[in-house]
Amino acid sequence: MSAPEDTAIRTTEVIRRKRDGRELSRAEITHLVMGSVRGEIPDYQISAWLMAALIRGLSRAETAALTEAMLRSGEVLDLAEFAAAKVDKHSTGGVGDKTSLILAPLVAAGGLIVPMISGRGLGHTGGTLDKLESIPGFRVDLSLERFRQVLGACGCSMIGQTAEIAPADRKFYALRDVTGTIESSQLICASIMSKKLAEGIDALVLDVKTGSGAFMKTLEEAASLAELMVDAGQRMGTQTVALITDMDQPLGLAVGNSLEVRESIQALGGGGPADLRELSLELAAWMFHLGRRAGTLAEGKQLAEGLIRSGQALEKFREMIALQGGDPGVIDDPERLPRGKHRVDVPSPESGYVRKIECETVGTACVILGGGRERKEDSIDPAVGIVLHKKVGDQVSAGEPLATLDYNSPSRATLAKQRVAQSYAIGDRPVSARPLIHRVLGGASRP
Amino acid sequence: MSAPEDTAIRTTEVIRRKRDGRELSRAEITHLVMGSVRGEIPDYQISAWLMAALIRGLSRAETAALTEAMLRSGEVLDLAEFAAAKVDKHSTGGVGDKTSLILAPLVAAGGLIVPMISGRGLGHTGGTLDKLESIPGFRVDLSLERFRQVLGACGCSMIGQTAEIAPADRKFYALRDVTGTIESSQLICASIMSKKLAEGIDALVLDVKTGSGAFMKTLEEAASLAELMVDAGQRMGTQTVALITDMDQPLGLAVGNSLEVRESIQALGGGGPADLRELSLELAAWMFHLGRRAGTLAEGKQLAEGLIRSGQALEKFREMIALQGGDPGVIDDPERLPRGKHRVDVPSPESGYVRKIECETVGTACVILGGGRERKEDSIDPAVGIVLHKKVGDQVSAGEPLATLDYNSPSRATLAKQRVAQSYAIGDRPVSARPLIHRVLGGASRP
Repeated sequence: MSAPEDTAIRTTEVIRRKRDGRELSRAEITHLVMGSVRGEIPDYQISAWLMAALIRGLSRAETAALTEAMLRSGEVLDLAEFAAAKVDKHSTGGVGDKTSLILAPLVAAGGLIVPMISGRGLGHTGGTLDKLESIPGFRVDLSLERFRQVLGACGCSMIGQTAEIAPADRKFYALRDVTGTIESSQLICASIMSKKLAEGIDALVLDVKTGSGAFMKTLEEAASLAELMVDAGQRMGTQTVALITDMDQPLGLAVGNSLEVRESIQALGGGGPADLRELSLELAAWMFHLGRRAGTLAEGKQLAEGLIRSGQALEKFREMIALQGGDPGVIDDPERLPRGKHRVDVPSPESGYVRKIECETVGTACVILGGGRERKEDSIDPAVGIVLHKKVGDQVSAGEPLATLDYNSPSRATLAKQRVAQSYAIGDRPVSARPLIHRVLGGASRP
Repeated sequence: MSAPEDTAIRTTEVIRRKRDGRELSRAEITHLVMGSVRGEIPDYQISAWLMAALIRGLSRAETAALTEAMLRSGEVLDLAEFAAAKVDKHSTGGVGDKTSLILAPLVAAGGLIVPMISGRGLGHTGGTLDKLESIPGFRVDLSLERFRQVLGACGCSMIGQTAEIAPADRKFYALRDVTGTIESSQLICASIMSKKLAEGIDALVLDVKTGSGAFMKTLEEAASLAELMVDAGQRMGTQTVALITDMDQPLGLAVGNSLEVRESIQALGGGGPADLRELSLELAAWMFHLGRRAGTLAEGKQLAEGLIRSGQALEKFREMIALQGGDPGVIDDPERLPRGKHRVDVPSPESGYVRKIECETVGTACVILGGGRERKEDSIDPAVGIVLHKKVGDQVSAGEPLATLDYNSPSRATLAKQRVAQSYAIGDRPVSARPLIHRVLGGASRP
């Protein structure tokens, strides 16, 4: 028999085995991934397999094998030229989550290397690349060579996925998006981890979001994904820890690309909302700890606080912006960032206490304003967004603004305003907000 | 939003609903089928849906909707020009099953119209088209216009699926073949019934095979498929009956294309093996009964017996062969059919009684001889095959031939001989064969 025929037969057999709930070998999974990337296995076979994998599930070993095969489908960065530990952080996505913008410069200021390859906004959640691009001139499409140069010059660099990194993931993800096969924690794990581990990092801190603004709505779902990712990372020899953190209301106060850059600059300068500051310090502490810059988390946190207080963290952000073609002047004068032409408040309909903020609705309101994409090919308006004035537990009087919208299109603002108003639930008794960090998984080997 | 985007979004939503085990509406199923045929829905979405449908299952209503949508994806024959009832028979496939070759001329000789659109061999099972093509000159690729002419001239015609008939089934089937989604009784039902109902028939007799040579190995599987098909046929207003018949050993004695034509000529002439004759008369009786040529099954059987005895059935076969370009001389001189250059016996290793014949193995032996296809693109040797001398329950002495192979390739014969020898189990006590007809479903409205 000819080789293509062998491939075809074997592929169908692999699909049938997963269809019947059997565990696939590493070789079978590699066959699928490499066959797809090489164009030998057509998309219709991959999508049938993806559906079988979603419904039947993948074992830990299968998930790790898929992660590794997708990782090895492309280039794996070798950053051995840098003596310091290479660490990164990844978030599963949320609303107002701008910690990446804070952590990359903060942790690089502490002497570690942060080679961060990020994504764009997805659905109601924001994307790090979209936020960075709201800085005039900032380029996220650096070549891997230039990425390496920026890392050498300032210790951190933030770019988008390149053609060389995990091409299998790009192919699989595009298929999953249109075949109803996104919602598998094992496939999500492999997608995230293959890209992150391709960065050639020593340690990875995962921020797995849970709550009404997260993809994983329940703590159980989040914990299950977190466990899978920690397991896949550790099997690949990368120290991995996962913090399950709250996304039941937006993180910080700003939601929208340039507004979030502005808030990140505030946080790097020692200001900004308390929850954003707390989570950033916690994540930085873990990165310093795993990267052996801090013996304990408490030391890591102190180090981070010191780097903010001294201005070194903010200075590092300025450096990175300049190295990636952006206007470093935004650091001292955030007014250089784009801003919506108009502003409108969303008043509280009654007096009381904020009981809940339906977080996904706030994210959707930002998309409606133009701050996110309804369709993949949509362009983004970097200037628009929402600034919250009240968060869960806060007291509010009737008519007092709950939030302010920055907008360019009045018709979009009308719709978005309704959504933001809907997202708030006001009660007559004070409530306490949920904890910011629900659980920590992995990383226990170094107390 | 643009129309293609609407389609894309809706398709993903439909896939997700089936993935989650929800029941789809007729409109959603029609959307998938027509979208695929029109080229608006890519194969990778269809294959993901097929996998979800196989694993989650389809309800009766979904199966009927799929059948109807595939049927309406192409032309539905209108044979109203013929006053007589239009009836057909379909078998789910077996080894040595040549009843179609007997029934089409037999039932047409009885005054009904038999517009039979058949398939080729699949796996270890034979195909009606392959058998017919072993008759020198016989054409199965008639246009629908010529098909209609042959029907008008002799009351029966046997052709292959044309481009006009159920194009969605051709597309779906090709995808199922390479995505591990063949083995769904609901998808099998829709595939079979869409093609058969497109023939514009009034009644359909289904021969659902069960046993070691059938695709449905157990009676339960066969009954489940039979029920689905009867239900789908009746929902579409076509009288449908299903006989669950035995395929635990080959039907008749001949397995292989020209050998089966030869045996069919014998049966139409009043001879041939008893089981082949019995099943053919039973199926013919149902066709006559549903086609209102016989008030009872007993009458139908008598009618069939008379048509064989009088020579009218065989004469009708001769007519059809001539009308479809074949050599009608094979009727009187079967030696005009191709025959393997060599013959070899398979001797019994011991004395006793045939306890079992592993039927799929016999079918595979015929494929090995060249009588079937190992790969879709293989050509078939019409001359080769196997003639059994012993069937279940028969007494045999050590060294006496169990079967004789007709072959052209000695190396293939060696392998096939082993398989045939393996397929026989000899015991020391007489056993009785399984009943030929296990169960009858549907058609009960006309006692």
